[in-house]
Amino acid sequence: MSAIITLTTDFGLADAYVAAMKGVVLGINPEAKLVDICHSIQSQNIAQAAFVLSTACGFFPQRTIHLVVVDPGVGTERKAIILRTPEADFVAPDNGVLSYIIQRYATIPAAANRQPLEPGAGLEAIAITRPQFWRSTISPTFHGRDIFAPVAAHLSRDVPPVDFGEAVDSLTIFPVPHPHPAPDGTLVGHILHIDNFGNLITSIKSHDLPAVLQRRTALTIKIGNETISGLSLTYGTGKGLMALMGSTDHLEISLKGGSASTFLNAGIGDEVKIFRTSSK
Amino acid sequence: MSAIITLTTDFGLADAYVAAMKGVVLGINPEAKLVDICHSIQSQNIAQAAFVLSTACGFFPQRTIHLVVVDPGVGTERKAIILRTPEADFVAPDNGVLSYIIQRYATIPAAANRQPLEPGAGLEAIAITRPQFWRSTISPTFHGRDIFAPVAAHLSRDVPPVDFGEAVDSLTIFPVPHPHPAPDGTLVGHILHIDNFGNLITSIKSHDLPAVLQRRTALTIKIGNETISGLSLTYGTGKGLMALMGSTDHLEISLKGGSASTFLNAGIGDEVKIFRTSSK
Amino acid sequence: MSAIITLTTDFGLADAYVAAMKGVVLGINPEAKLVDICHSIQSQNIAQAAFVLSTACGFFPQRTIHLVVVDPGVGTERKAIILRTPEADFVAPDNGVLSYIIQRYATIPAAANRQPLEPGAGLEAIAITRPQFWRSTISPTFHGRDIFAPVAAHLSRDVPPVDFGEAVDSLTIFPVPHPHPAPDGTLVGHILHIDNFGNLITSIKSHDLPAVLQRRTALTIKIGNETISGLSLTYGTGKGLMALMGSTDHLEISLKGGSASTFLNAGIGDEVKIFRTSSK
Repeated sequence: MSAIITLTTDFGLADAYVAAMKGVVLGINPEAKLVDICHSIQSQNIAQAAFVLSTACGFFPQRTIHLVVVDPGVGTERKAIILRTPEADFVAPDNGVLSYIIQRYATIPAAANRQPLEPGAGLEAIAITRPQFWRSTISPTFHGRDIFAPVAAHLSRDVPPVDFGEAVDSLTIFPVPHPHPAPDGTLVGHILHIDNFGNLITSIKSHDLPAVLQRRTALTIKIGNETISGLSLTYGTGKGLMALMGSTDHLEISLKGGSASTFLNAGIGDEVKIFRTSSK
Repeated sequence: MSAIITLTTDFGLADAYVAAMKGVVLGINPEAKLVDICHSIQSQNIAQAAFVLSTACGFFPQRTIHLVVVDPGVGTERKAIILRTPEADFVAPDNGVLSYIIQRYATIPAAANRQPLEPGAGLEAIAITRPQFWRSTISPTFHGRDIFAPVAAHLSRDVPPVDFGEAVDSLTIFPVPHPHPAPDGTLVGHILHIDNFGNLITSIKSHDLPAVLQRRTALTIKIGNETISGLSLTYGTGKGLMALMGSTDHLEISLKGGSASTFLNAGIGDEVKIFRTSSK
Repeated sequence: MSAIITLTTDFGLADAYVAAMKGVVLGINPEAKLVDICHSIQSQNIAQAAFVLSTACGFFPQRTIHLVVVDPGVGTERKAIILRTPEADFVAPDNGVLSYIIQRYATIPAAANRQPLEPGAGLEAIAITRPQFWRSTISPTFHGRDIFAPVAAHLSRDVPPVDFGEAVDSLTIFPVPHPHPAPDGTLVGHILHIDNFGNLITSIKSHDLPAVLQRRTALTIKIGNETISGLSLTYGTGKGLMALMGSTDHLEISLKGGSASTFLNAGIGDEVKIFRTSSK
């Protein structure tokens, strides 16, 4: 019964919304271990929540339950779901916030907005429809407290997912940004996230780099008007503006002793280009 | 011994004051489950703390202990109290921060600033006066750490309230804002709280609406120069500026995809008026 | 196995870095009790982290493990260490962030930047060098998650410090600021920290005050162009700008109902002078 339940929301820290959800969980499973992932997601920013969640959930023990409430469609027809993967359970609105999780098990086509769950891929999804596991009164504006939290709590007491509703065979996704090659051979990625240090986390992962760019000195990075030669190994060994492969295997742009975001006036969605360092 | 202790303070998140309180609690009851309600209350804003606490405490299990340290009078003659209700225990300064809790069990007259505890109302209050349950050294500036935290921890180990000091028969309150009818029949309420989404939470609850306004389309809301027709059911179904009954049964003003607070330049204390939608 | 592990970082609250560390800890010791001390340390501000940690760690139970990750040198040759004191264990980079802890057991000479660990002082330090207690893959940019967190978790399961690496006989420190007497007899200290209320926490402790200044009315405080007569006992009894001995025994400058920091436009490092109130 001492399952771990994590929480990711856009509720901020100035209200008691997160606490109300925790109170509901503990009323159902007093032994649940509650761990905050992040509550500072921008209001209703599903893509940011999806990314931030994906950088942490893989480091939790098997069968952790991840409760995600970034839910601009609360009270509308959007579904509430449980997604069971081989590693963990997710309780969330069906609005794309699990896109990065789903793509670990399935190839998401570009421009898709629904993803079929292929048999054998190890994913099982349930629409949360049975009110017996909800609070007795449901606010149309706060399903996090009245539906998602009690469902996560019952799930942590080993109620099987199928008891919460019917299986669904596809889920809402957004196209997870992937870098693409430009005609001149340049690899073009984008900024996905800016962290607390002002580091720019891009969509470029190490397996995106073609073999010819696998040597750290073989590539050059261009962002805005700035050019960075080669990859640094760590923040400590780089100088000034640098690029490196960050702790979740995304290429990052970082500024020694400062904020790359402020220095470059860069924002989420900005382009980052990688090309082969010209020889001689 | 695995009682839940919640914490509500104006200590912010940039210092270690909250952590020091948690350390003290765990030194006395290692099994206590600590849950943060909110630490971003504006400095010494008793009314805000009282409201935020009231939106969460009812969702915790029976006999949760709520530790509240918003305490501008620390070190002065203001009392420290335990308030036991049929549902929970509160450990707080006697400065009005429990006004919303007390009014659930007693009618608070307008303009009152002390509330007698009527026998039979189910409320029991104790002045915290016996140092045997405090830290051995008391800082005159941090009773949260040296008095309130250890008292909450001992209480969580089933020390009865009467052991901490003498019963008191009245408590400090502030008049909880209630909407009032204007001569023209308009119902006049005020903004109590602005949440992380910029939603304006007002003093108007559903039972304040006269029968004639109980239909959602029968009423019109006026705030500043803006007029809103009818109540929406959810954030997702409303459009632009909307009004709805929020998750703690307070009428809220919300802006689809934005902050109503910024859009309206509205602040705590601003008036919100409700009147009957004129027919034809 | 239900040891307490605290966390102090400069990771902020907008990312999932802290959560990833907690996930790693719970994967190794599911019974660990995780308590946040502070995650809002300014980026790479070792001195601030050292001070904030020092204001809370003494209030935790014996043998609490304090995990501190403010680590500008991550991935470079700086050591990772375990420091065992008679009260607690610290897991941190060897970059000075434990200076206030070390000085409780040893006199740190002015201008020193390494501190020998004297036999008999009760301090034992280990360089973390054995990868068997780390995650199997180490990101060069996030030792907090891949080295410090798993080491703290194994330590909480009673793995002895010596199993993690070799004893070291000195640690990196920075000179902890101490007040000094000026030629005219004035005591000169500095602002170490500004808290959430705008209180200015100085380097002056009660034992720094010479006997002649031990009476609260016998001294005058000068900061910028302002002069404060005598010490107040509490925030509640003082008026306007006041000075008092704060809850961690540091002299503080506080403004009743406001922020002394904003009022005085004062910052970390600014001078605060104390002199004897001239008689008659």
